[in-house]
Amino acid sequence: MTKNKKPLILVTNDDGYYSKGIAALIQMVKPYGDIVVVAPDQAHSGMSHAITVKHPLFAKEIPNDMGVKLIKSNGTPADCVKLAINKLLDRKPDFCVSGINHGSNSSVSVHYSGTIGAAREAALYGIPSIGFSLLSYDHDADFLLATPWFEKIFKLALKQGIETGIYWNVNAPYGIDIKGIRTCRQNNGRWIEEFLERKDPRNETYYWLTGRFQNDEPEATDTDEYLLENGYVTLVPCLLDISCTSSIDKLNKAVNEL
Amino acid sequence: MTKNKKPLILVTNDDGYYSKGIAALIQMVKPYGDIVVVAPDQAHSGMSHAITVKHPLFAKEIPNDMGVKLIKSNGTPADCVKLAINKLLDRKPDFCVSGINHGSNSSVSVHYSGTIGAAREAALYGIPSIGFSLLSYDHDADFLLATPWFEKIFKLALKQGIETGIYWNVNAPYGIDIKGIRTCRQNNGRWIEEFLERKDPRNETYYWLTGRFQNDEPEATDTDEYLLENGYVTLVPCLLDISCTSSIDKLNKAVNEL
Repeated sequence: MTKNKKPLILVTNDDGYYSKGIAALIQMVKPYGDIVVVAPDQAHSGMSHAITVKHPLFAKEIPNDMGVKLIKSNGTPADCVKLAINKLLDRKPDFCVSGINHGSNSSVSVHYSGTIGAAREAALYGIPSIGFSLLSYDHDADFLLATPWFEKIFKLALKQGIETGIYWNVNAPYGIDIKGIRTCRQNNGRWIEEFLERKDPRNETYYWLTGRFQNDEPEATDTDEYLLENGYVTLVPCLLDISCTSSIDKLNKAVNEL
Repeated sequence: MTKNKKPLILVTNDDGYYSKGIAALIQMVKPYGDIVVVAPDQAHSGMSHAITVKHPLFAKEIPNDMGVKLIKSNGTPADCVKLAINKLLDRKPDFCVSGINHGSNSSVSVHYSGTIGAAREAALYGIPSIGFSLLSYDHDADFLLATPWFEKIFKLALKQGIETGIYWNVNAPYGIDIKGIRTCRQNNGRWIEEFLERKDPRNETYYWLTGRFQNDEPEATDTDEYLLENGYVTLVPCLLDISCTSSIDKLNKAVNEL
């Protein structure tokens, strides 16, 4: 961090710059540094860590009453982080926060999440980075119920940093009393899709993606799914290096015999 | 696998159903089972593990001279896998192969890759799954130079399976003699973006994403980057569970004090 300067905090999300979740997040981090928001100009749910290579990106500053510099872009959440770091900001951010996502990013949703894609992108640049999500799909969800807990986690990360090669996936329950915060691992599970089938005016079949989460380890008590259901805000430290190092030696023996 | 039936092998990619890479992959796996191809109707490079939630998906069978069932979809690579497993196939695939990608998916490109997003999606359903990529961006790249090596790896996986919770990211060098196959870990690095700046007819600035890879551990000899440069086909076993379990206990102590 440059001396005599407040930390530069980059804020982004995947629900769009105008969403209630990002407004709550801006309000939460504003006391801790200089805030620049670079966020998508529309919702990018399920966008994962996608980047835009086939068309160009625009970036436009938007006047706002939150007292922060706010830039919208037609890019994905990960694009917004790339644009911010490489083009739009005059110095490297000291921290990145992404969210607050309108809906869960627990368990395997970490792979589909644009919120987490953005947080991971910042982590690739060595920037301490957290993705925050609220387990509510209600239009009127009150994000401020979770922010006191998220703020504790953010302050901890500001104070002690986040280990290199790691970023944090933080989720908060909704509609139940919050008991505290727990660090834990990602639950094993999958989405079981039930594609809705429809016919278009030319009688072509098309499908709407819809599904339900299947918990593959419903007995486990050390996972984010379990802890969220039981009233805890969960913090999953996630790896940038996703290699399964424990299986390399055994596999190497097998491939050496090919 | 159902008795008396050949393995059902799902083939997909991110370069589009018409690409040379997928044709080479189809040819490679065809002797080993019943092949169904479900692949994007256009290129989806950099699409990561994105899924489509805002518009519906179409799926259309395309006549072809490869002797396989080939279905194109307007979905992402991960959508194609979801559609195949949940809607288009009459039984669960025994195996999924994705690629051959026209370009590298080594190191941190694993996070941006649509090829790998599709392979990861199949792995979430418990299907042994491999993403294959060739380190060439030449229009005339000869994918058949790599397939004898990829076939060895595919046969190994068919024979011994792939551990639950793991999928394989396989890359092959191009333009140099291939010395063999190595299992290894993902190289630490990042893409340094150099956004090209342009003006549109209304004088609005826009940016094209472009960049170069920065190797953050150029001295390491046990990574995919190093081994690829030195003539090896690399196999990185990748984790579905990306939690950093080794840091959970220490972090839990810190959050319990909040």
